[in-house]
Amino acid sequence: MHIAALHQPSQVQLNQQGNLKHFLTIEGLSKESLTKILDTAQSFLDENNNLINRPLLEGLTVMNLFFENSTRTRTTFEAAAKRLSANVLNIDIARSSTSKGETLRDTLWNLEAMAADIFVVRHSSSGAAHFIAKDVCPNVAIINAGDGRHAHPTQAMLDMLTIRRETKKPFEQLSVAIIGDIKHSRVARSNVAALQTLGCKDIRVIAPNTLLPVGFNEYGEHVRLFNQMNGGVTDCDVIIALRIQNERIDSPALASQSEFYKMYGLNKERLALAKPDCIVMHPGPMNRGVEIDSSVADGDQSVILKQVTNGIAVRMAVLALAMQGQLQEQGLIEAISL
Amino acid sequence: MHIAALHQPSQVQLNQQGNLKHFLTIEGLSKESLTKILDTAQSFLDENNNLINRPLLEGLTVMNLFFENSTRTRTTFEAAAKRLSANVLNIDIARSSTSKGETLRDTLWNLEAMAADIFVVRHSSSGAAHFIAKDVCPNVAIINAGDGRHAHPTQAMLDMLTIRRETKKPFEQLSVAIIGDIKHSRVARSNVAALQTLGCKDIRVIAPNTLLPVGFNEYGEHVRLFNQMNGGVTDCDVIIALRIQNERIDSPALASQSEFYKMYGLNKERLALAKPDCIVMHPGPMNRGVEIDSSVADGDQSVILKQVTNGIAVRMAVLALAMQGQLQEQGLIEAISL
Amino acid sequence: MHIAALHQPSQVQLNQQGNLKHFLTIEGLSKESLTKILDTAQSFLDENNNLINRPLLEGLTVMNLFFENSTRTRTTFEAAAKRLSANVLNIDIARSSTSKGETLRDTLWNLEAMAADIFVVRHSSSGAAHFIAKDVCPNVAIINAGDGRHAHPTQAMLDMLTIRRETKKPFEQLSVAIIGDIKHSRVARSNVAALQTLGCKDIRVIAPNTLLPVGFNEYGEHVRLFNQMNGGVTDCDVIIALRIQNERIDSPALASQSEFYKMYGLNKERLALAKPDCIVMHPGPMNRGVEIDSSVADGDQSVILKQVTNGIAVRMAVLALAMQGQLQEQGLIEAISL
Repeated sequence: MHIAALHQPSQVQLNQQGNLKHFLTIEGLSKESLTKILDTAQSFLDENNNLINRPLLEGLTVMNLFFENSTRTRTTFEAAAKRLSANVLNIDIARSSTSKGETLRDTLWNLEAMAADIFVVRHSSSGAAHFIAKDVCPNVAIINAGDGRHAHPTQAMLDMLTIRRETKKPFEQLSVAIIGDIKHSRVARSNVAALQTLGCKDIRVIAPNTLLPVGFNEYGEHVRLFNQMNGGVTDCDVIIALRIQNERIDSPALASQSEFYKMYGLNKERLALAKPDCIVMHPGPMNRGVEIDSSVADGDQSVILKQVTNGIAVRMAVLALAMQGQLQEQGLIEAISL
Repeated sequence: MHIAALHQPSQVQLNQQGNLKHFLTIEGLSKESLTKILDTAQSFLDENNNLINRPLLEGLTVMNLFFENSTRTRTTFEAAAKRLSANVLNIDIARSSTSKGETLRDTLWNLEAMAADIFVVRHSSSGAAHFIAKDVCPNVAIINAGDGRHAHPTQAMLDMLTIRRETKKPFEQLSVAIIGDIKHSRVARSNVAALQTLGCKDIRVIAPNTLLPVGFNEYGEHVRLFNQMNGGVTDCDVIIALRIQNERIDSPALASQSEFYKMYGLNKERLALAKPDCIVMHPGPMNRGVEIDSSVADGDQSVILKQVTNGIAVRMAVLALAMQGQLQEQGLIEAISL
Repeated sequence: MHIAALHQPSQVQLNQQGNLKHFLTIEGLSKESLTKILDTAQSFLDENNNLINRPLLEGLTVMNLFFENSTRTRTTFEAAAKRLSANVLNIDIARSSTSKGETLRDTLWNLEAMAADIFVVRHSSSGAAHFIAKDVCPNVAIINAGDGRHAHPTQAMLDMLTIRRETKKPFEQLSVAIIGDIKHSRVARSNVAALQTLGCKDIRVIAPNTLLPVGFNEYGEHVRLFNQMNGGVTDCDVIIALRIQNERIDSPALASQSEFYKMYGLNKERLALAKPDCIVMHPGPMNRGVEIDSSVADGDQSVILKQVTNGIAVRMAVLALAMQGQLQEQGLIEAISL
């Protein structure tokens, strides 16, 4: 798919007051919207990075619709929803509908009629969550938990929260490098969009041309491409190493894993080129010895596990905010109380 | 199986005071019992058709035992039980016992000893839930979530609730048509029994002879058979289109799906023969273009999605009532408080 | 594996104050520790053997990590955790990590970072839970739900609770026989260790030599071996019949099931040799007509289903105690309040 097709500004996810009522994509959201998510997520973390439970979804029903399996992401949403006191139902969506010849639309309407308040949707097709929010169940809060190669917006927001909490610098002053398999990553595009919106002026993408998507030059302002590690990571504040998506690579874009490690693996020597307090991030699951060396993954500068905890807080924030936006849209509350 | 064998009046599901302690089948229940279920279910719905949560099963444990998979029905029971604040455990019953050579009876006794209060049972054999209630675990409230071709009593009760709420007429004055695959449907028999008990005087079954069960003439009073749509639906208040159970048809009873649609598909022209305010129902999942046309399924007279919401309310009612009946039987409460 | 290798005293499971912070194995725990578990479990049962819910894990997160499937054991832990008001997440651990090339250590760290407080671990390798507690996630309370042929410590404790409640005699005065497949049983070793620690002076193991583990003579004091039933069960207070682990037997150790029943099956005649008030136990699932006759399994002296209920109480106790031990270790509470 050509990237440009995905850049349509989307107001589907905002209610009439301009607040989130779904959470589908970073693109098109204002700096204020993103900052609201970050502030709300931060309110669910205490000074020791422990999560704080809040019964904001008491009595409400969250359904996880994972058309594409992802135990890890599903677990984080389930944990987040339970910390908000929601009822959580994991729907075996692959088995529940198409096997009986029902249309997807009918299946979703049925689930909505079971009094679902929120759908967490993961699908291998780009735009699936957007389609459901716009055309099928606009009155259910739709949360995009990853669609195709396009967006993984909660991952982007947990990365932004981690950057904000761990660097303690404004986004405007940061240099951020994203390394690796840009082409097959749901994460890269969402992260670039979030960084741009939050004001980052120096976004560096480091990858071989074979791992860049078609139309890369449309990534937009403040983004620079590097084919070499050494120039790319120099003086960075943040380095994000992406997972090599072996299971998605359908052409011989990589000579081998060891070849990739030799060219782009993040090791101590390369990290030493960045600023001394540069933080190291990775969306997981890691391929140790491919995109990242264990000495870095487990080193002092790594904030990889903090990302995971921040991910629960961000998912709590997005669930609670979108739900309030739905209630506001439907005239059931006057204002967002978060 | 011959139908007559299933008409044994069953008092197994009532306690000594005559209140439900299991919910196994419509047959043998009085009009008062059915009305009690409908009234209780209605108390869980507000005027906007939104569900009201009630912590009636707080601290109690509901186990879903689905010997036969049905994601949809299981989800509705799980949602209903959680709205009553129960602890819900989905037991992988197919894997948990027979694979280790244990008898089913021992497996059930073990689950009961884990302090289960309610079993929701789905099984492909007619009478399975009845057998468990009578012979294995009489002190656990057993809820039949569908057994064989025999009964699907919560589906029948949600249909009755929908008819009562949507037609706003007494059952005595209604003409109700049930169309399609009577032979393989769990729904048809339960619905006919419920309609008869609630006083309906005009029940019409519309189907080709190949889709009627052996012994159809034993369906009882007020039931008329039609082989043609046009006579059958004329002046009806309620039309229930059944799903064509492709996966159950083991003989060439149907020439083809398109042939069925031509003869029995519910379309606008046929619906126009019914009363102008006739409601259209379907138990789901729908085969659009086979038993029902999309213009009818999505039309103004369709209450198909309201059935789904009513289904949660009915399952809440049945869970709560049977539990109270067990507690009354065991001397732990004096009277049913619902 | 040689038995001696497993007898290393393990202090990994105790915090600095000597209280449980994990629950990994019976071996190395004092009589006081085991009695504390039994007393706590007993506090969750009323005089009618009904379970009492206690919100001791309110707001905390329990993750079930069953590397080896066991629906029964998982269900008991899930039921126990929910009775303590925990949030429970069943992790599809087999699918979540290795399929994507992540190391097990990284997967566990990720789950910990999702703010897990307790891991319930079942694994086919001896020592897996111990390894996680010692080397991977020491700050998560690790509960061993069965590992390899080694330990099944919650089963042992539920057996001890059942013996204490049902015989009403001190352990010092009891004669206890364990019959059957000692070699492949997780239960036998844990039970012998628990009985020894609690002061039992007469532990009898009844089995053919082919079903004894290598190094059996290292089972320790107060343990006697019998190859015949008649001498072994005479004047016993407690008989524990073990399941014949057909699925684990990899050599022709048994001529046949019927041969085993003839030699070691517990029937009425053999039970009559024990004391008149001897209780009969079995860890389940039973092979009726192999290790135990139905007349005994369902007879007056059987306490097999009480074991199951006691198992919930014991798992509640172990979850709550280990959690408090973690909080004490981390300085968050001063003393164990149970």
